[in-house]
Amino acid sequence: MSITDIAGIQATGGSVGIKAGGVFDAALVCVDEPVTCVGVFTQNKACAAPVKLSRAHLEQTSGAIRAILVTSGNANAATGAPGLAAAEALCEAVASSIGAKTDEVLLCQTGLIGIPFPLDAALPGVSSLASTLGSDASAGERAAKAMLTTDTFEKTVSLAKQGVRVAGMAKGAAMLAPNMATMLCVLATDAKVSKDRLDAALRAGVAESFNSMDIDGATSTNDTVLLLSMGTAPEPEAGVLEALVAEACMKLAKDMVLDAEGATKACIITVRGALTDSQAHRGARKVATSNLVKCSLNGEDPYWGRVLSEIGTAGIECDPELVTISYGGIAVSKSAVAIDHDVAGVRAHMAERWIDIDVDLGLGSGTASILTTDLGHGYIDENRTTS
Amino acid sequence: MSITDIAGIQATGGSVGIKAGGVFDAALVCVDEPVTCVGVFTQNKACAAPVKLSRAHLEQTSGAIRAILVTSGNANAATGAPGLAAAEALCEAVASSIGAKTDEVLLCQTGLIGIPFPLDAALPGVSSLASTLGSDASAGERAAKAMLTTDTFEKTVSLAKQGVRVAGMAKGAAMLAPNMATMLCVLATDAKVSKDRLDAALRAGVAESFNSMDIDGATSTNDTVLLLSMGTAPEPEAGVLEALVAEACMKLAKDMVLDAEGATKACIITVRGALTDSQAHRGARKVATSNLVKCSLNGEDPYWGRVLSEIGTAGIECDPELVTISYGGIAVSKSAVAIDHDVAGVRAHMAERWIDIDVDLGLGSGTASILTTDLGHGYIDENRTTS
Repeated sequence: MSITDIAGIQATGGSVGIKAGGVFDAALVCVDEPVTCVGVFTQNKACAAPVKLSRAHLEQTSGAIRAILVTSGNANAATGAPGLAAAEALCEAVASSIGAKTDEVLLCQTGLIGIPFPLDAALPGVSSLASTLGSDASAGERAAKAMLTTDTFEKTVSLAKQGVRVAGMAKGAAMLAPNMATMLCVLATDAKVSKDRLDAALRAGVAESFNSMDIDGATSTNDTVLLLSMGTAPEPEAGVLEALVAEACMKLAKDMVLDAEGATKACIITVRGALTDSQAHRGARKVATSNLVKCSLNGEDPYWGRVLSEIGTAGIECDPELVTISYGGIAVSKSAVAIDHDVAGVRAHMAERWIDIDVDLGLGSGTASILTTDLGHGYIDENRTTS
Repeated sequence: MSITDIAGIQATGGSVGIKAGGVFDAALVCVDEPVTCVGVFTQNKACAAPVKLSRAHLEQTSGAIRAILVTSGNANAATGAPGLAAAEALCEAVASSIGAKTDEVLLCQTGLIGIPFPLDAALPGVSSLASTLGSDASAGERAAKAMLTTDTFEKTVSLAKQGVRVAGMAKGAAMLAPNMATMLCVLATDAKVSKDRLDAALRAGVAESFNSMDIDGATSTNDTVLLLSMGTAPEPEAGVLEALVAEACMKLAKDMVLDAEGATKACIITVRGALTDSQAHRGARKVATSNLVKCSLNGEDPYWGRVLSEIGTAGIECDPELVTISYGGIAVSKSAVAIDHDVAGVRAHMAERWIDIDVDLGLGSGTASILTTDLGHGYIDENRTTS
């Protein structure tokens, strides 16, 4: 599973001196001729220099791109004008090393916020990164590894259907919240599709996956998801590319939840029976962002009263008398009171890595799910200081 | 400092068998003749039986009340029709013990959600509670003690100005969030004022204090703030009662923040320079509910980048170039970049119990503050299981 599974994609990863001790901190994805690229970016108003620059480059080139540079260890966010200049210098270095124009290079960065980007240290390594590009699996694996920050494993995907393939890689292990969060994702497909269709497929896939994930309610300054189309495979039937992109995004999103900083549990919270999908989404997100619910997951305690209480304050239509709450498919509460149920079955489910909470509001047909995690000591230990 | 500082108020507290081992779990506040009472309740749609009943009693009596019973250990929330019947039985028991009508008795309850209320165990003790009523300080202290759940100290207040006094007591140590949260508060004043003025003073006081406090984003099923007016002191000048009620609410709110479950820090987050007060409030609350910011407080780390990132996603007007962020009055970031500052001074401030974070958006004159806490192991240990 590697982005190099897509014919024509070259990749590499290595150390350019952003992180100490020769740890991989720069990935490069490259193609020989400009190809169509679409992107989805953070909605954070305090967005980072690489987000500003990549948006501008996509516009200037109408989405015809030669390379994507990903660096880790320093987010280059809240770094002001010097940060933007550093981002431009990084794109220039890549462009001249592969014979491209500067605006044909996109930039993704992740790491600590508010610390000047160490451009002088990184520039020589970035300039020579292209010399190690390859199109085999190990080249793709180097790239996937170089994206990581506090992640504990590489997140990659490669899926095919009806002669079309989508493959890619991602990083993300915290600040995973409304509308993405310190998460970067680079996908590619061999399918020949219009830019509009590519864009629509990516937006739909992101909405159902990365934007339906909430680890700690924080939305990063740097979130970026990019999708390249090589156009070497035939145009897929309606729905085929869309399904592949959605499945690829969901696979990577689940990897992020499993790897969330300090988490011991991954959880899918589904609200159904809402008046609308949007109300279901708001309810599920309210439960997913509840520290009390998340502590209960950590303690393997099916404390449905907290779930009901969060639904009651989610700002959506609900009547507690109509609500049914289930853990692992076993209903534990109906009409806002506890009901007899298979206690041992629930206990066994709570001990699993993936926990399912289902809230049926009994009002309509609106449904939505949010991926989240528990809240335990590990999250705090990882986030209490930057040192 | 006790609610019995108000002439005519009698109080007591004792054990009625809701909690094990004879721990105080029931408080009674009582007056000889019906007096004007106003209340503010939770906005949680899954509100508890005592909230439903007290709202109904206030309406039936037009706010002429004889007694308030407060029980702790079981919230009587998510307990269905039997819970409502239990709440009515408790009010009846108090009413007959003091010769009042049932709807002249209000009920506040706090504790675990979703567990049937142990009415049979509690009823005899509640019926005999009135026999220990007193009007001295120790009687008020017994009542303040009996309200507590995971609180580690009694929260009381008594303030006087221009011949008028406001005194009272509260409990609350978690789920302190948007629009109050497992917090109960009973206040009384000797001032003679109209019900409308009493109500307006309470609503304004609550908005600035309990509703500007956010420990964990959760809003309880049981929140209740009540204010009795004895009418024995003269009618105060405009603003005097209002200031006293606001100050009393703020004192009790700060006590709750200091006593928040597992917290090691209390923090005031102020957003100023917003377009409106309402936008400032939204920004301050977004920062206050950020687990990443709260972990930084736990680690005494002035990580302003996270504060800026939260402001950027708060859904309010802001331009990072205009933002100044200060810790303890010392500016550490301007225009979205770090600035030279008194590092030792900031370090000393971060080591204090109360931490001040000030975010100036530089746009307008809107200002708001939110009280919050850090997030540490203690919170998780207290909330991961109910056992």
